[in-house]
Amino acid sequence: MPEIQLNKIGVVVGPQKPDAIAVVRNLLIWCAGRDIELHATAEVAEQVGCTPLIVNNEELAEQVDLVVVLGGDGTMLGASRLIGTRRIPVLGINFGYLGYLTEFTLEELFSALDDLLANNFQAEPRMMLDVSVTRGGKTIAAHRALNDAVINQGALAKMIELECYVNGDFVNRFRADGMIVSTPTGSTAYSLSAGGPIVFPSMHAIILTPICPHMLSNRPVIVPGEMTVDMTFSKATDGVMLTIDGQRGVTLEPNDCVTLRRSETTFDIVRPTKRNYFEVLRTKLKWGSI
Amino acid sequence: MPEIQLNKIGVVVGPQKPDAIAVVRNLLIWCAGRDIELHATAEVAEQVGCTPLIVNNEELAEQVDLVVVLGGDGTMLGASRLIGTRRIPVLGINFGYLGYLTEFTLEELFSALDDLLANNFQAEPRMMLDVSVTRGGKTIAAHRALNDAVINQGALAKMIELECYVNGDFVNRFRADGMIVSTPTGSTAYSLSAGGPIVFPSMHAIILTPICPHMLSNRPVIVPGEMTVDMTFSKATDGVMLTIDGQRGVTLEPNDCVTLRRSETTFDIVRPTKRNYFEVLRTKLKWGSI
Amino acid sequence: MPEIQLNKIGVVVGPQKPDAIAVVRNLLIWCAGRDIELHATAEVAEQVGCTPLIVNNEELAEQVDLVVVLGGDGTMLGASRLIGTRRIPVLGINFGYLGYLTEFTLEELFSALDDLLANNFQAEPRMMLDVSVTRGGKTIAAHRALNDAVINQGALAKMIELECYVNGDFVNRFRADGMIVSTPTGSTAYSLSAGGPIVFPSMHAIILTPICPHMLSNRPVIVPGEMTVDMTFSKATDGVMLTIDGQRGVTLEPNDCVTLRRSETTFDIVRPTKRNYFEVLRTKLKWGSI
Amino acid sequence: MPEIQLNKIGVVVGPQKPDAIAVVRNLLIWCAGRDIELHATAEVAEQVGCTPLIVNNEELAEQVDLVVVLGGDGTMLGASRLIGTRRIPVLGINFGYLGYLTEFTLEELFSALDDLLANNFQAEPRMMLDVSVTRGGKTIAAHRALNDAVINQGALAKMIELECYVNGDFVNRFRADGMIVSTPTGSTAYSLSAGGPIVFPSMHAIILTPICPHMLSNRPVIVPGEMTVDMTFSKATDGVMLTIDGQRGVTLEPNDCVTLRRSETTFDIVRPTKRNYFEVLRTKLKWGSI
Repeated sequence: MPEIQLNKIGVVVGPQKPDAIAVVRNLLIWCAGRDIELHATAEVAEQVGCTPLIVNNEELAEQVDLVVVLGGDGTMLGASRLIGTRRIPVLGINFGYLGYLTEFTLEELFSALDDLLANNFQAEPRMMLDVSVTRGGKTIAAHRALNDAVINQGALAKMIELECYVNGDFVNRFRADGMIVSTPTGSTAYSLSAGGPIVFPSMHAIILTPICPHMLSNRPVIVPGEMTVDMTFSKATDGVMLTIDGQRGVTLEPNDCVTLRRSETTFDIVRPTKRNYFEVLRTKLKWGSI
Repeated sequence: MPEIQLNKIGVVVGPQKPDAIAVVRNLLIWCAGRDIELHATAEVAEQVGCTPLIVNNEELAEQVDLVVVLGGDGTMLGASRLIGTRRIPVLGINFGYLGYLTEFTLEELFSALDDLLANNFQAEPRMMLDVSVTRGGKTIAAHRALNDAVINQGALAKMIELECYVNGDFVNRFRADGMIVSTPTGSTAYSLSAGGPIVFPSMHAIILTPICPHMLSNRPVIVPGEMTVDMTFSKATDGVMLTIDGQRGVTLEPNDCVTLRRSETTFDIVRPTKRNYFEVLRTKLKWGSI
Repeated sequence: MPEIQLNKIGVVVGPQKPDAIAVVRNLLIWCAGRDIELHATAEVAEQVGCTPLIVNNEELAEQVDLVVVLGGDGTMLGASRLIGTRRIPVLGINFGYLGYLTEFTLEELFSALDDLLANNFQAEPRMMLDVSVTRGGKTIAAHRALNDAVINQGALAKMIELECYVNGDFVNRFRADGMIVSTPTGSTAYSLSAGGPIVFPSMHAIILTPICPHMLSNRPVIVPGEMTVDMTFSKATDGVMLTIDGQRGVTLEPNDCVTLRRSETTFDIVRPTKRNYFEVLRTKLKWGSI
Repeated sequence: MPEIQLNKIGVVVGPQKPDAIAVVRNLLIWCAGRDIELHATAEVAEQVGCTPLIVNNEELAEQVDLVVVLGGDGTMLGASRLIGTRRIPVLGINFGYLGYLTEFTLEELFSALDDLLANNFQAEPRMMLDVSVTRGGKTIAAHRALNDAVINQGALAKMIELECYVNGDFVNRFRADGMIVSTPTGSTAYSLSAGGPIVFPSMHAIILTPICPHMLSNRPVIVPGEMTVDMTFSKATDGVMLTIDGQRGVTLEPNDCVTLRRSETTFDIVRPTKRNYFEVLRTKLKWGSI
């Protein structure tokens, strides 16, 4: 990671986090004392109600040297879309229920920023997935996923028969409620619930975890991050959805091809130097707590 | 099981099973030679296109001494609703993909009927679940399940937080994609896909299998068939559904209470004397085939 | 359960529990004030070092109306062997690491005893398994298990090929590191580690949980408590062991038959009236704690 | 992979494979017609009983340009030890029960050798693990594993409490029957039985799969192949064993440290050009066969 010139900070606030607005005010004071501009959306600026906040909306991420996220993992996933391919480091302060991505506590915010100013920090590049949907030879949707892309259906008609290919080689026909294609970062999210393994987040790997497979013999499969995964289904099942990071949905039709490959860009997450990945796992998952 | 006086047979045919119509014609001939009436719905009669078939629709099950199902497990589940509390034995001929319930092959149909006439057969009573939904003190829905009752949501907003009680005792708050409450018969259906165990079908037991639980530590729980299970949820999640045997749906609202208890009636399935339950398991599941 | 005339109490103390000896002294005082005899083994009496304790060794359980266990689940399992078929209620005070069986805390001991004197308590009969080994037509070993019977091997040569029968019907040939045959009580012990479900302890059921099955498709199987399970193996693998409740071992030879059936006796455990089974599960397993 | 000059072939034969000896004779004829020397051990030579076979024992692998294995996966694992760090390509002909490593059938042997002579083949380098045991500051054992290194105990005293570190960071204290540390190649071996995922064999990754973890919350963990794994245990449990590829054992003592890191050498397996990895999986595992 290159050094950061910390002249402009963007702040992204999760929905319905009134406590976070007070933090934005403190952040403004911290920035003012250091000649740093603080950028936010109009919505946040209105709640903060003070002048020095610079209002950006969509272009927020283009302007800044660092994004501070006040919220939960969902807000981090949203910030990853805002940043796109710009590789701006992101520091997440946990205001949510769990926080695999927002690894700093509120108490650590300003010491973490001081560390950043002193260039004393780690920004860990996380692999993302480019997800595209091809229909009749045309790309009809393209998204980037930090956690996962999920193909599944509605509540009543559940089973899909998905054909999966890796680098063009047929893997299997999965009869299941759906399929999760996850990054290592996403391995502790939905994939874990569906029975997937914990994959160290710096790895380049794609994890295929079937959801409630209607065969006894299915297991999660992990392939190298360099490989291309294609998924398709032919039966005319109703309402099949592709969901990106649990937040963006694409309605699929039979014979659509969903293609997933490692993105050229990464999500660059600022991590606490004093806490390693496994400590976060043990704490958040109460992993092995008995 | 009481002895069967085999004077009237009802035949239930699965949708889109043209081969089964030919079988109905052969069944008519078999019945004619034995002074047995054959009853079917108008829809089947029309496809068969011959006179001696007696047309019943909803009341089919009221009139007959035995129901012959030509179809898959889904057709058997439908037949269980048709029969209701009448405890008429059901003989299933497998025309479907899998057949835990339709255990006879087509080749075995007439020898099985000959055995029945000679009173030389097993009818195995299978536990069912009475499933009711209470809203604001009123029962708004009541169903009977042979396999399972499932509470879950749509494709995008997946996680529900379900509170579960057994005989009034709090069991746990399950954060999951949903919950399967299954009979032993249903243990080899959806519950198996979600990680549930195989439960011998003659048992009186209720199996609680969470779907993709968002905690590492959830396991299927099996409670005695005599216990009452209550499930509720308070968060205003959208589109929560209760699905009975994968076929009947009830839209739930927060604070609805879904109550499940063993039904006083059973589903009386005619089973091949020469094949035990485990043989069916091994064959259908390719269980332990390596 | 019949009413208890509480004239004689036996106390069983787990190994290396010095704190428990102090409790025995307090128990002596409590008994003295109520004209109740307290019985213990010579080993405990020596550590306690005072006269009024009545010394019994093997025959301890024959003499008493109640057994108080100060220890962990292992001590409870040992007490179940001491009691044999006599159906003396057992009250377990947890001095161990986990305590599914020793459900009372030390603080609750005397109030629990007061409740017992007032006949205000539940003693819950728990199903046990009679486990016997037949070799060349002769029964060479017979044990009773409260938790489980395990067939497995040593560290290096792991895989066994076990044939399993239920009521004489062939179930499957399990290629696995071993097999756990568990009672509902034992479902939260070793079976849980090997992937088995949680089974409500009042049920009459036998749980078959393969250990590391060398097939993808094995699942725990639950059969009615009334059924008889037979296990055998033919390959001359070295050092196959049958272990009862993790405490008693029998060395098996090829073609030995291990037969398991529900015992006519039960283990009658005194349970706290104010804590239900699920509360114990949630606490001990940190079940669903996120 | 460099080009192969195919002047000398070594042949390794699995124990108790009489059919394989006939194949060695055919191999001799094939080699004789192409001016290729065939090397084997004295034991094989004696069974073959003909002159032109060159007898090598331990130094077999030093002399040859290719090793042909006639046997099962166990024979391949043995061949990997014979080859050591020399990176000689290995072609495995399946004479065993399963064959993840011996991917060629007997019928394919000579066409595969013809392809090799024509330099028309893939040799896939497979990651191996260097496994060493340190006691009191000294390395007391060092092995190389192609599949896995397993720490576990005997039949009766099962549970170990293992501390695991990755790159010096504490991961967790695993209370389990043992731990499997596996390569991607080994992910379809013992690790799969213990619940591990399928990991594509070309990956650089280390898979940690606990065996029957005595906590609900353990999952397989996958870390980058570049990381170093350390495992230790302090409790004086009896008879803890480290087993390499299921074939070599080291008796461990408390406070021994088992260190695992990616080996600088690889095992170079000749693979059929016409069968991809997933086809092998589907065939051998009957993976997804319903």
